[in-house]
Amino acid sequence: MGPSRSAAFALETHPSDYHHWRLAVEPPLATLTLAVAEDSPVVPGYKLKLNSYDLGVDIELADAIARLRFEHPEVRAVVITGGLDRVFCAGANIHMLATSTHGFKVNFCKYTNETRLAIEDACAHSGQHYIAACNGTTAGGGYELALACQEIYLVDDGNSAVSLPEVPLLGVLPGTGGLTRVVDKRKVRRDLADVFATLGEGIKGKRAVEWRLVDGVFPRSRFQEAVRERALALAAEEPPHAPGILLDALSPAVTADSVRYRHVELQLNREARTAELTIHGPNGPQPATSESIHAAGADFWPLRVFREIDDALLRLRFHNDEIGLVLLKTRGDLNAVRSLDTTLYQLREDWLVNEILLLMARTLRRLDLTARSLFAVVDEGSCFAGSLLEIALAADRIYMLRDAAGAVRLASSALNGGLLPMTHGPSRLQVRFMADPAHVDDIVGESLPFDTDAAEEAGLVTAAADEIDWEDELRVAIEERVSLSPDALTGMEANLRFAGAENADSKVFGRLSAWQNWIFSRPNATGERGALTLYGKPERPQFNWRRT
Amino acid sequence: MGPSRSAAFALETHPSDYHHWRLAVEPPLATLTLAVAEDSPVVPGYKLKLNSYDLGVDIELADAIARLRFEHPEVRAVVITGGLDRVFCAGANIHMLATSTHGFKVNFCKYTNETRLAIEDACAHSGQHYIAACNGTTAGGGYELALACQEIYLVDDGNSAVSLPEVPLLGVLPGTGGLTRVVDKRKVRRDLADVFATLGEGIKGKRAVEWRLVDGVFPRSRFQEAVRERALALAAEEPPHAPGILLDALSPAVTADSVRYRHVELQLNREARTAELTIHGPNGPQPATSESIHAAGADFWPLRVFREIDDALLRLRFHNDEIGLVLLKTRGDLNAVRSLDTTLYQLREDWLVNEILLLMARTLRRLDLTARSLFAVVDEGSCFAGSLLEIALAADRIYMLRDAAGAVRLASSALNGGLLPMTHGPSRLQVRFMADPAHVDDIVGESLPFDTDAAEEAGLVTAAADEIDWEDELRVAIEERVSLSPDALTGMEANLRFAGAENADSKVFGRLSAWQNWIFSRPNATGERGALTLYGKPERPQFNWRRT
Repeated sequence: MGPSRSAAFALETHPSDYHHWRLAVEPPLATLTLAVAEDSPVVPGYKLKLNSYDLGVDIELADAIARLRFEHPEVRAVVITGGLDRVFCAGANIHMLATSTHGFKVNFCKYTNETRLAIEDACAHSGQHYIAACNGTTAGGGYELALACQEIYLVDDGNSAVSLPEVPLLGVLPGTGGLTRVVDKRKVRRDLADVFATLGEGIKGKRAVEWRLVDGVFPRSRFQEAVRERALALAAEEPPHAPGILLDALSPAVTADSVRYRHVELQLNREARTAELTIHGPNGPQPATSESIHAAGADFWPLRVFREIDDALLRLRFHNDEIGLVLLKTRGDLNAVRSLDTTLYQLREDWLVNEILLLMARTLRRLDLTARSLFAVVDEGSCFAGSLLEIALAADRIYMLRDAAGAVRLASSALNGGLLPMTHGPSRLQVRFMADPAHVDDIVGESLPFDTDAAEEAGLVTAAADEIDWEDELRVAIEERVSLSPDALTGMEANLRFAGAENADSKVFGRLSAWQNWIFSRPNATGERGALTLYGKPERPQFNWRRT
Repeated sequence: MGPSRSAAFALETHPSDYHHWRLAVEPPLATLTLAVAEDSPVVPGYKLKLNSYDLGVDIELADAIARLRFEHPEVRAVVITGGLDRVFCAGANIHMLATSTHGFKVNFCKYTNETRLAIEDACAHSGQHYIAACNGTTAGGGYELALACQEIYLVDDGNSAVSLPEVPLLGVLPGTGGLTRVVDKRKVRRDLADVFATLGEGIKGKRAVEWRLVDGVFPRSRFQEAVRERALALAAEEPPHAPGILLDALSPAVTADSVRYRHVELQLNREARTAELTIHGPNGPQPATSESIHAAGADFWPLRVFREIDDALLRLRFHNDEIGLVLLKTRGDLNAVRSLDTTLYQLREDWLVNEILLLMARTLRRLDLTARSLFAVVDEGSCFAGSLLEIALAADRIYMLRDAAGAVRLASSALNGGLLPMTHGPSRLQVRFMADPAHVDDIVGESLPFDTDAAEEAGLVTAAADEIDWEDELRVAIEERVSLSPDALTGMEANLRFAGAENADSKVFGRLSAWQNWIFSRPNATGERGALTLYGKPERPQFNWRRT
């Protein structure tokens, strides 16, 4: 089998280390050119032909998107294009998929989906517009990458097409939001989408425009210039910011059973199939003005700590799939967290503060979408306030110690009022209190911390326990949780976490990815004679024709 | 293996033939009492112990719900209760599930979900309120049945609990909307829902009320009377109607490769894995007043034809799972269909007409949710107008003949304006034209039929072909479709058919059922040592602990 835990590939990178992307910054534009080095897969075992990608390619893309936001705020439009001859991108590498475990496939798709959403987030909230310049074959995940951009332009050379060939050629779905974005985002008519998604060769030229699959086509002779003009026009709509800040490496200390960052620790207990993710609050005086926040840059606690949490979650997903339950803990000063939250809220119009808030929101959504059971543990010395309260609210359960001194507390801040929304739109408090929406405002507006009794009364706690019962109660809850079927828990949590109406973003994870999960595990795709298994081989797949 | 195509059980029934339910009508109340005959499973092979159900039990329930609407419009509140000692309902029979094929499990869950939605539809749109009187153990699908009711009352006897034990005991999800309805409909706090759904023994008494799992508890001594009082209060809110009409049996003529009803034919081509579903329009003079419609009763064409379509769809799902593609055809007079639609629209306040419209809408939703490829074929003699145009709009593609005479036409009616909504709320035209919402009104308001050119221009046609190309084009399209992976098509269609925001109803099918599909096909549930397989046996399940 291919990628798995043992392949502990790096999840951090830097443009100077990119193998597959070239990032060229010429404010107000930037160009991201994909020229996949076919001999540099993230783990050995396959070649990345024809600008096809694996996780390593996407880790670089995610890094570039993040750096463009923080390091290059003077860039207002980003052109993504292909750097190989006559190919924009051929999508996820099929041999990588065919040789990966089910769990890796699912997590690979989840990560690429999150990266695509980060592009849309930048377009919507950072004033950084992405344009796909499809200068050649744009197939499968290649077209899905284009779909994540705000506008798509295709070269009109009589040959280059956009396509989603997964259903006809591989017997699986386009797994990176393609079907959802075609009908929900680009509003392609559903019957045309049906034709498109079953047509291996795709659609090119004028018809691709008529069907709303792309925003325009240009002949090769003036393609680059036409896209550049459009990018400049989009860039002109947005005020540029400068200067950016540098994102330094997180470089955690990694041992067999722990990952230690500056403010975050991930402690693994493989035998018990649990992990503890401990977040340390800010320490000492903190910047309270735009100037001092910009001066602190990547060292500013909220930025650093959420980058660390994000990295830790990815390590859990990719390198520690035997961990079923994550205990979420905090250590620090409740009021220091609240105070920083207040600073962020007041300065939210500052471009850097805005970016930090958006990063916090994306990281929290990554947590919501992590297929592990999450228990928040609110005990002595914890500091679940405001932005860190969201960590607890993302958990499946919140356990809180009722200490004799009444020192264990939770607290809200202005950041709980909707600035850190879930994938489907509402805040975590809104989802939690769907039965009583007015209660959300009460909690957000509450200026005092909640001791355990008050937190329980306010509905913020799943179970509270006195000191004498605390350890036993928590131990029993943990043991029970890790004894349950991991598949059933994944499905249950995916269904209980996202109450309320769904939108296109959440449909990618809730509807499309769930169907893909099923298809990935069916013999028609991944069996010995399945279409994914046999791709590129002379044999034809053999299907069990029964429809469900 | 258990139930499959060979078990061609009946999908029609009548209260006089019920094995498992007793329907007692005492206007304005009715009582549906579940007393499952354990020795009468729908196919041999298992016992229906402890008021557990199989498809046969649910077919009777669906029949009762339909008859209550049409035959007993004087009933304004329906109490569902248990008829065995100390048990309301123990949910779907586990041995039936464990011995069924994957396809049967999926279709069984889909059908039971549709039946639960029919209960909610009656509460919301027919002024017929359902109350669950949980007079004993209410477990799994039993609690999900209660969740579909408008109010849930539980006996407070120190023992009877509501529970969703699927995750802890079976390693699967509650498959009939339980998780969705707990958080989305009843707005149970998500962490409490997490505790509830992992607690095999469930929740009883006052805590069940506090957690919003039930609306009230009463001691056994006054349980029946208290529920009755509440039912009478609900019934008093609604104006009763009378008299009802009788729903006669459809009794189609069934051969090895066809099912023939009065107005509908289902022709199977098993070798090609296709079917033709042909719908015949109204013939001769039709009722045009409330009085004449009531007099026509079950013979009234719109009622009869949609009942027949509904039955045909169920036969396709349960008895013909090798059919991958259904060609939807009509034969008759376009204007006769439109004219009847106009009558229905004008008389929509009449209770019977309202019920007919609701039945049409439910049948069309059953079509949307049928996991087979659907091609509408608009050719000579067809009558895709208004309500039958919805059949075409439900299809994945619409093929239309361009005949020299220009006699092949489509037409809209007032019924396309939103009276026949999809599961997630919008009309099929709204979903089709998400890119241009104003166009929907143009089409609904168009008083003239669309010939092929006009239909194509209006975006109503996927592909039009002249007479000389027609047969070839259709043949190639059909051959291509049935060559594709059935799993990938199921997933693709589920993702392309439902553009737009999702609600709780559609989340049951889109999110919950998709996850359940995956879980059903995983070894942790259905493998040799899976939890579902080993249920009731002394061995403990063995899980692969890796989380995705």
